[in-house]
Amino acid sequence: MTLTINELARQYRQALLDDVLPFWQRHSPDTQYGGYYTCLERDGAVFDTDKFTWLQARQVWMFSMLYNRLEARPEWLEMAALGANFLQQHGMDDHGDWYFSLTRQGRPLVQPYSIFSDCFAAIAFSQYALACGAETETGLAARKLAAQTYQHILQRKPNPKGSYTKAYPGTRPLISLSLPMILANVSMELEWMLEAELFQQAVETCLHEVFSLFLDAERMILREQVAPDGRAVDCFEGRVINPGHGIEAMWFLMDIAERRQDAEMIEKAVSVVLHTLEFGWDPQQEGIFYFLDAQGHPPQQLEWDQKLWWVHAETLVALLKAYRLTGSAACWQWFERVHTYTWAHFPDPQHGEWYGYLNRAGAPLLPLKGGKWKGCFHVPRALYLCMRELEKLQQKG
Amino acid sequence: MTLTINELARQYRQALLDDVLPFWQRHSPDTQYGGYYTCLERDGAVFDTDKFTWLQARQVWMFSMLYNRLEARPEWLEMAALGANFLQQHGMDDHGDWYFSLTRQGRPLVQPYSIFSDCFAAIAFSQYALACGAETETGLAARKLAAQTYQHILQRKPNPKGSYTKAYPGTRPLISLSLPMILANVSMELEWMLEAELFQQAVETCLHEVFSLFLDAERMILREQVAPDGRAVDCFEGRVINPGHGIEAMWFLMDIAERRQDAEMIEKAVSVVLHTLEFGWDPQQEGIFYFLDAQGHPPQQLEWDQKLWWVHAETLVALLKAYRLTGSAACWQWFERVHTYTWAHFPDPQHGEWYGYLNRAGAPLLPLKGGKWKGCFHVPRALYLCMRELEKLQQKG
Repeated sequence: MTLTINELARQYRQALLDDVLPFWQRHSPDTQYGGYYTCLERDGAVFDTDKFTWLQARQVWMFSMLYNRLEARPEWLEMAALGANFLQQHGMDDHGDWYFSLTRQGRPLVQPYSIFSDCFAAIAFSQYALACGAETETGLAARKLAAQTYQHILQRKPNPKGSYTKAYPGTRPLISLSLPMILANVSMELEWMLEAELFQQAVETCLHEVFSLFLDAERMILREQVAPDGRAVDCFEGRVINPGHGIEAMWFLMDIAERRQDAEMIEKAVSVVLHTLEFGWDPQQEGIFYFLDAQGHPPQQLEWDQKLWWVHAETLVALLKAYRLTGSAACWQWFERVHTYTWAHFPDPQHGEWYGYLNRAGAPLLPLKGGKWKGCFHVPRALYLCMRELEKLQQKG
Repeated sequence: MTLTINELARQYRQALLDDVLPFWQRHSPDTQYGGYYTCLERDGAVFDTDKFTWLQARQVWMFSMLYNRLEARPEWLEMAALGANFLQQHGMDDHGDWYFSLTRQGRPLVQPYSIFSDCFAAIAFSQYALACGAETETGLAARKLAAQTYQHILQRKPNPKGSYTKAYPGTRPLISLSLPMILANVSMELEWMLEAELFQQAVETCLHEVFSLFLDAERMILREQVAPDGRAVDCFEGRVINPGHGIEAMWFLMDIAERRQDAEMIEKAVSVVLHTLEFGWDPQQEGIFYFLDAQGHPPQQLEWDQKLWWVHAETLVALLKAYRLTGSAACWQWFERVHTYTWAHFPDPQHGEWYGYLNRAGAPLLPLKGGKWKGCFHVPRALYLCMRELEKLQQKG
């Protein structure tokens, strides 16, 4: 591949502004009941109208963030408001937890069993507050909601699944990478509204947990679940490696490390990205596996060998950040490899946007552009962040 | 294919007695702590020692049933006792519910969230009671346990997931095919120990629910979830078609219909089997899909296009029963087709037993012979039942 940084920057910007955002602007607004449709066929046709809080909140975040950081386009703020109002009216239960899903009209469908609904609501209302103007009435209300939700997440954190947990208490306690990883990102997003001490403490806890508990320091890959003291546990859950997850966690931590100018932490995060890619890359058919067993046993997840959009999108972000921060040739080589695979397989040249789910061979497993788990988030966020990284590389010359 | 009934009967018998049962006898007994290993690599090596109640109970049932119905081999009874004792000692909580899983030593790992653990425990102890002799001390204890568990299932039935249900009450109530379908089979299994009236009532309820609520009478295929009044619900869960499940349900009902000599019900069940095959067969790469969307939308399940051992095993049983009961040429043609596909792709000629999970193209997706969901059950049960059906066809001439 002989693409220049300039050409790449243009490619990511064009895909974001001329393809992906317009796709969601065209097909996702529910102008009747508010919120967004996310279950979209290949051509954007709506095939299901349920509203999943993860995806509603992430789309609010997406358009608010672009309004704040890229360009203050009124239609982007309008789009964010459509989801923010819907969530504000319908999304939260009496305890301050966010429902997992709602009907098209906003009636609760699935209980607030997932703390990640709360996490995505927090970042959504934080960005939306900034977009509205933090001192306007709407901005103040959004800010309050984000702050409340953040406090609530910290309270829920020791027992995130609450009464929905199926594990028998005491026999085999396990903790999950997902939570400290997402909290690192959520805390960075909310820094502007948090007390300095609370922010510092939250970020320290995340860093400690990710690197001291979940990292297999010999192999430099992250486990998804470990014992509370960080020991590896030889069971299905304890053996799971989710390469995309580990790599995404590493760019969250690179953001923190860059802010602190902590070169050692950057090196560590970059090393994990590269080791995870060595471990998770499909040597026969290319692309990054979805799930692997740390010991090479059969994974429990039947979708283990599929190639997912978010895994590849987040890896592109991680590699460009890693390359800009370290200048490592290995990072650039891996970027070229993952970039080539990703752009050859995920985008749909006919109807726009990206396929979400490819089979091992790289062919679409499902034609959808959005569903219960894929919305307006990983693709545009990665395109935006890659574009920014490439622009910084351009400036460096 | 020009296989004769005689050759087929021999093939199914040999696979059962010379391949599949010996594989589990060699690799699954945990002689130290009792119970069975079910997580077995391709060559039978144990890769995980957790004990899942579904699979422990099903293996107890399997060896007890063969002891009772095929041949009273002492080693089969011993094998059944190994799991029955383990379950009796460790499997049940204080409320009479069966844990979902246990450690190798028998400590509870996952709470009794699944009513199907109870269903498989009930059929296990019922067959085991008969194998021990229903009037012996062990037999009486097993019988009592089966009867208690059956009562408990009927109590749990209106709200099978209890506090683990994530659905918000009232918004979109759904009922599942799994429960009446399994209860039809469980009730038939326990008939010998149930009061006639209770048995009649239970079976009537199952028949009514399966045919009046879950059957799409126009398309003659079964839905996995419907509204409590049988209406189709246009949502992910409401659109799911699981062809293997529907076909397995139909042979359970054929058993009941045959017992009642209800030719009309037999015709109906057979028609559902054939329509489900037309709907669920992969026209490009053969085999039966795992999940489809009733309206042709993208299914939610990422494993939708995989070819699973139990789907094909249960279809072979259903088609042979259907052919014996009706003589329908379509049933025999479909049997030849599914038989050919199944025997070409699932058995492992090198290490024995069957692969569980094939990708769409029919190649093994995972090398395992057993795991969290695949144990000593569908393959040997189907081989046994097919052999019996073929022997009955031989007798008919």
